[in-house]
Amino acid sequence: MADNSRPTRPVILGQNQYGKAENRVVKITRDGATHHIKDLNVSVSLSGDMDEVHYSGSNAHVLPTDTTKNTVYAFAKEHGIESAEQFGIHLARHFVTSQEPIRTARIRIEEYAWERTTGGHSFVRKGQETRLTQITYDGRNWEVVSGLKDLTVLNSTDSEFWGYAKDKYTTLPEAHDRILATEVSGRWRFNWSDDAQEMPDWETSYERTKQHMLQAFAETYSLSLQQTLYQMGSRIIDNREEIDEVRFSLPNKHHFLVDLAPFGLKNDNEVYFAADRPYGLIEATVLRDGCEPRIPVDLTNL
Amino acid sequence: MADNSRPTRPVILGQNQYGKAENRVVKITRDGATHHIKDLNVSVSLSGDMDEVHYSGSNAHVLPTDTTKNTVYAFAKEHGIESAEQFGIHLARHFVTSQEPIRTARIRIEEYAWERTTGGHSFVRKGQETRLTQITYDGRNWEVVSGLKDLTVLNSTDSEFWGYAKDKYTTLPEAHDRILATEVSGRWRFNWSDDAQEMPDWETSYERTKQHMLQAFAETYSLSLQQTLYQMGSRIIDNREEIDEVRFSLPNKHHFLVDLAPFGLKNDNEVYFAADRPYGLIEATVLRDGCEPRIPVDLTNL
Amino acid sequence: MADNSRPTRPVILGQNQYGKAENRVVKITRDGATHHIKDLNVSVSLSGDMDEVHYSGSNAHVLPTDTTKNTVYAFAKEHGIESAEQFGIHLARHFVTSQEPIRTARIRIEEYAWERTTGGHSFVRKGQETRLTQITYDGRNWEVVSGLKDLTVLNSTDSEFWGYAKDKYTTLPEAHDRILATEVSGRWRFNWSDDAQEMPDWETSYERTKQHMLQAFAETYSLSLQQTLYQMGSRIIDNREEIDEVRFSLPNKHHFLVDLAPFGLKNDNEVYFAADRPYGLIEATVLRDGCEPRIPVDLTNL
Amino acid sequence: MADNSRPTRPVILGQNQYGKAENRVVKITRDGATHHIKDLNVSVSLSGDMDEVHYSGSNAHVLPTDTTKNTVYAFAKEHGIESAEQFGIHLARHFVTSQEPIRTARIRIEEYAWERTTGGHSFVRKGQETRLTQITYDGRNWEVVSGLKDLTVLNSTDSEFWGYAKDKYTTLPEAHDRILATEVSGRWRFNWSDDAQEMPDWETSYERTKQHMLQAFAETYSLSLQQTLYQMGSRIIDNREEIDEVRFSLPNKHHFLVDLAPFGLKNDNEVYFAADRPYGLIEATVLRDGCEPRIPVDLTNL
Repeated sequence: MADNSRPTRPVILGQNQYGKAENRVVKITRDGATHHIKDLNVSVSLSGDMDEVHYSGSNAHVLPTDTTKNTVYAFAKEHGIESAEQFGIHLARHFVTSQEPIRTARIRIEEYAWERTTGGHSFVRKGQETRLTQITYDGRNWEVVSGLKDLTVLNSTDSEFWGYAKDKYTTLPEAHDRILATEVSGRWRFNWSDDAQEMPDWETSYERTKQHMLQAFAETYSLSLQQTLYQMGSRIIDNREEIDEVRFSLPNKHHFLVDLAPFGLKNDNEVYFAADRPYGLIEATVLRDGCEPRIPVDLTNL
Repeated sequence: MADNSRPTRPVILGQNQYGKAENRVVKITRDGATHHIKDLNVSVSLSGDMDEVHYSGSNAHVLPTDTTKNTVYAFAKEHGIESAEQFGIHLARHFVTSQEPIRTARIRIEEYAWERTTGGHSFVRKGQETRLTQITYDGRNWEVVSGLKDLTVLNSTDSEFWGYAKDKYTTLPEAHDRILATEVSGRWRFNWSDDAQEMPDWETSYERTKQHMLQAFAETYSLSLQQTLYQMGSRIIDNREEIDEVRFSLPNKHHFLVDLAPFGLKNDNEVYFAADRPYGLIEATVLRDGCEPRIPVDLTNL
Repeated sequence: MADNSRPTRPVILGQNQYGKAENRVVKITRDGATHHIKDLNVSVSLSGDMDEVHYSGSNAHVLPTDTTKNTVYAFAKEHGIESAEQFGIHLARHFVTSQEPIRTARIRIEEYAWERTTGGHSFVRKGQETRLTQITYDGRNWEVVSGLKDLTVLNSTDSEFWGYAKDKYTTLPEAHDRILATEVSGRWRFNWSDDAQEMPDWETSYERTKQHMLQAFAETYSLSLQQTLYQMGSRIIDNREEIDEVRFSLPNKHHFLVDLAPFGLKNDNEVYFAADRPYGLIEATVLRDGCEPRIPVDLTNL
Repeated sequence: MADNSRPTRPVILGQNQYGKAENRVVKITRDGATHHIKDLNVSVSLSGDMDEVHYSGSNAHVLPTDTTKNTVYAFAKEHGIESAEQFGIHLARHFVTSQEPIRTARIRIEEYAWERTTGGHSFVRKGQETRLTQITYDGRNWEVVSGLKDLTVLNSTDSEFWGYAKDKYTTLPEAHDRILATEVSGRWRFNWSDDAQEMPDWETSYERTKQHMLQAFAETYSLSLQQTLYQMGSRIIDNREEIDEVRFSLPNKHHFLVDLAPFGLKNDNEVYFAADRPYGLIEATVLRDGCEPRIPVDLTNL
């Protein structure tokens, strides 16, 4: 009678977290007539001794989400924004060390890049990828995962797909020269995890990591998007000693060769239809040997 | 010299999965002049013995994502679509049992509801929440997590927020009668996990669960959105014996009372500004005591 | 030498307008324990004697957009929100009559519908179509155009498409029983244009107009989406004497019958692929004879 | 009894158009190992003698939208894609000259820019603005309107706003050093309108026009966004003799200085909150003197 007894077992609270999401902060730094801009979207998530607010509504342990928003803006003034990672570290340390009930803080940041146009104070948003970072701190250990999303790349040749498994539902013809395109969503975890360790140079690390990724994408003669993904990840691990783990979520943005034969035309890998849905979705983690995987499996929600 | 030796350690492949995402399938069933419609967005994700395709590009173990797409459409004909859950179970079982290298299949489905207008074959899309389900099967155990997203609810009174922790960044005034509004993203895990067990009636379960959730939202006099969330979850666990775990991600969609005093007007909880960003974000799991939490902590990505 | 002389001709200012867009106002009306909610997104656009601000930056004639925002919130208190149309009329009249340089005001409003769940103060957003209205006033004449967008409808039979023109690029097979689906974007212009005339009952008019449109869509045996569109429009003109002009923009949301023959299955109008892009786009105005068309040709921008 | 007689007046068809929207075409041109890519989203809209299909459903004059799609792909092969403008001209001429019932063709194209990374065939999508063009042809005259959208620009100083009109709803404080930011949506009309005239170099024209616009934005000391808009437009007219008319729709993307005084901090134009809604919306046409305005007043729909 196991089933019937189920509802008599009481209900309990599991993992919970709260905070203010998507605080849009823009910081201008004035170096004479030359200005600098940092443009972030900061989300704070706190957890700890929060049972009572769920059970009874007592807010005694709850620092308001409005206060976490104020802290983001005040810290932009007090600490500046040297990098998204450094800014997130300041915030996470503050919440965990200043409020007793808060045991863990997770700060997520999106960063939008700008480039100067003419003169010292006029900018245009680059509009390419969105840079990401997530800082987690539990009072002892740090976890820093950075990355990017919405970076669309395409190889117009050097991609094949054949020799695959077949079953009764397989109709796909083999391809020996196809377009390979994807919109990269990537995350990489730093091995910095302790205040006693020297920090990486977060800005340089980002630029170099993105460059290795783009080069691996361009230079891999691809027999499968999985192979390209693995090359992108291993190139980063091989070249960036501060990074131990990489995960990519790569939609296969299909470009179908259009059949022009009905119009008496030959389509010699020239004219493609760029499809929206469905799309292949290839996801994998690449690790330095001996390291524990800690990046979540789902980078994108459907 | 641990740091210097890092790059010499080799790179390895971690968790990986692949498949065709967002297959849009519409199934019409004709019961004489009365038609029925099921409108799904189906994403297939497979994992197993896939190291070689990542390392060398050999596709010998790779059933093409195009084949998984074909299977979705063929199964809509062969098995019909009784419910999203039942349809996902057919698909997951097929991939795991028919392809030796595939060890685990995860099927995610979004369902869009339609209602009949006039006559038997004309429909209007309801356009309210999107119903969700995720089926995971590893050849032995089943995990079924259903839920919804984009259901926006609002209480125009019976919500307070005061008695909270304060620090030097706290400026929020206490509220004794506020609007409480959220866009519900919820998931619930069924305790059905074995082919030998009788399945729940998935359609009835969904309707009742949604109803309990809406009633708990309406009937809770709220001192904190956390308290409301817990009531929504525990009401489901108490009333639906087929469900052992619930997780909600609830953005606090702030409605700020507009200050009309500069215009000589009194705003007696009548006129509000509905803000976009930032928003509070309250997330928690509610469990039947003794059950293991298995729903991921992140329901929404930023 | 016409081309060379071009740049020597001076530059002049053409049509211009300004205002605050997307003011999100929520109004709660309390009838004892039963509350009512109006949820609007209001955009103000003003034009008139504004040359100087463009030429020299002098703001002497410019009522700040911030003031137009304040006015929206203050009027929600002062006049209430009986209907979006009535609210827009109050606003437009105010701007034109109170600021000498302002000659014309255009108020655009989106309205989101809610329905009460349980008790008197708990609501769920309906989430179906977005209701629209646009009020234009030049100090003498009124123009009221209402409508809706994002209403998705589908007929699972009673639609054909054949007998069309063919050229060398035509490959489409004729269809004698297809799904017809569209996401309606519609606008209708009222013949009320003068304060001396009695106003229509805006709320009732909207409900009835939507109902006629849905019925015409359901009841038309369709040989072309153009034919269905015309029936939808003419049904409104025939039945709603307060309306003189209707325009629809109807994307043909293609549902392609999936070829299941390779899997030994017959697809008897049962299993469809719902495509995203490209889509047919059918647009037309339907008028009461003798009336001038005034609704713009483009309802949707690409 | 005017009102009662209304419904007795018959219903007629007004302006109408149809076609296939959002045909996604990617064209690869191979110059040895160096590849070139053109990535377009093409929408076809045709009008002419189409009354009968609306009244009776007869498709005898209707070239299927599917055929217009096929034509886009076939023309990418037959004519190549030298520029979006040139490609649109080929398409518009074809439809008007080859199908007797079609009197006017309007081709709208979005273009997405890519830049080469490493090697000759690997590309990253630039991701900044979307380039636009619209070609209209009625068998005699051409109208070419090009432009862009989604280009976000920001000046971190040299912007003021004061001396404006005030009424009882005005609370805005004057600003003497503010951030000025906008997401440019612009259109410009070429004076080329006749096959006998020499065509502009469409690619060069686009690059230079964008450059003039960005420079005018950067170099204008702004007392009002209207003033900046006018400078952007007149700079184009002054410098590009092939362009006679420009229209901009400029949302004022407000960056509010955060009040840090409650935390004992001074905010010396450093820390800003980037707001979403509401936003100011400034729209105007700038013309070469003596030219007729033909660009529609609404570039963006709300």
